[in-house]
Amino acid sequence: MTAPTRPTPPVQLTLSPGTGALGGSNGRYEKFLPDLAGLYRDRSAYDRLVDGDDGRPVYWVESSQTEDGPGGLITGVSVLEPGRVGEEFFMTRGHLHAISDRSELYVGLSGEGVMVLETVDGESQVVEVRPGQAVYVPGQWVHRSVNVGTERFVTLFCYAADAGQDYSIIEEAGGMKSLVVARDGGWAAADNPDHRGYRAD
Amino acid sequence: MTAPTRPTPPVQLTLSPGTGALGGSNGRYEKFLPDLAGLYRDRSAYDRLVDGDDGRPVYWVESSQTEDGPGGLITGVSVLEPGRVGEEFFMTRGHLHAISDRSELYVGLSGEGVMVLETVDGESQVVEVRPGQAVYVPGQWVHRSVNVGTERFVTLFCYAADAGQDYSIIEEAGGMKSLVVARDGGWAAADNPDHRGYRAD
Repeated sequence: MTAPTRPTPPVQLTLSPGTGALGGSNGRYEKFLPDLAGLYRDRSAYDRLVDGDDGRPVYWVESSQTEDGPGGLITGVSVLEPGRVGEEFFMTRGHLHAISDRSELYVGLSGEGVMVLETVDGESQVVEVRPGQAVYVPGQWVHRSVNVGTERFVTLFCYAADAGQDYSIIEEAGGMKSLVVARDGGWAAADNPDHRGYRAD
Repeated sequence: MTAPTRPTPPVQLTLSPGTGALGGSNGRYEKFLPDLAGLYRDRSAYDRLVDGDDGRPVYWVESSQTEDGPGGLITGVSVLEPGRVGEEFFMTRGHLHAISDRSELYVGLSGEGVMVLETVDGESQVVEVRPGQAVYVPGQWVHRSVNVGTERFVTLFCYAADAGQDYSIIEEAGGMKSLVVARDGGWAAADNPDHRGYRAD
């Protein structure tokens, strides 16, 4: 006889949009400049930044997960510092979910950002995410966050606990199809000449 | 030969915490006082409210769903007007997910509310939900929102598209185990003498 499984306790989370702290979280990872080699096209601009690196993370994620499997959800906060490498704005590596039909919700909490969304078939969209805006990323979309403002860009996310992340799909394609670059004091989407198309598996 | 399935387009949503409007939504339902017969213990207080009913909804939900199945998420906004029926505050009917292991995230957008969470085994918790707070409701928890403030209580929610709702589990139990009632200018949890325990199926 096995003991009955006790339901997972509810979790109360506290959001601090300005700093991006997530009270009640149980997971965190950080990405520093040296972790991001190859992510940006302007290698000399990247090298100069690494030379002057102050050791703070470029972005980090605080998350809460208490359940595995398709019934659970992972939620958390993603925080991207403002900055550029050459003409490209600071951005996350981006991913497709390892279970590729898994979707994700992002809610803008502070700052000015965009999400780049691309399908393996070559569709590409860039969607603004500001406080008071949310973006639903359906399954089958590779996606990345970009901070196009001058403050921290903070989003809340929520996705199925079994989704996983495939980061290599972007590396293997030579980067995403669209770059988000500085133009005339704002941002613009530009074609990435290094993009070779996504693998179709 | 079938045509290849095109990925579902991303959805941009706009939140208006004060009013609870959700720009970009594609679903809405409203609950009016006459829909809520039997939900509150004080029948004469309920009857008096119905007699003076101005016909506006007590609560409504605006939602966005573009995908079915376990990979999709339904997101939206729930809006509860302030008010009481006798000593009980305005609340939603509450539900367990029809696929009972499906969890749900609620994020406070405006107003002052609580969530009542109960397991079939008799655990009961009442958790505050204010702007800047979120509650993760794991699978197997019956849950309901209650507006304990004087303004609209607005939350953002997110859950798996295949989860469904079982509303009857609460009715069949004689209501939830805990009531949320007015006490000394605030709120308190009180035992519901009509609660008969949840069915275990």
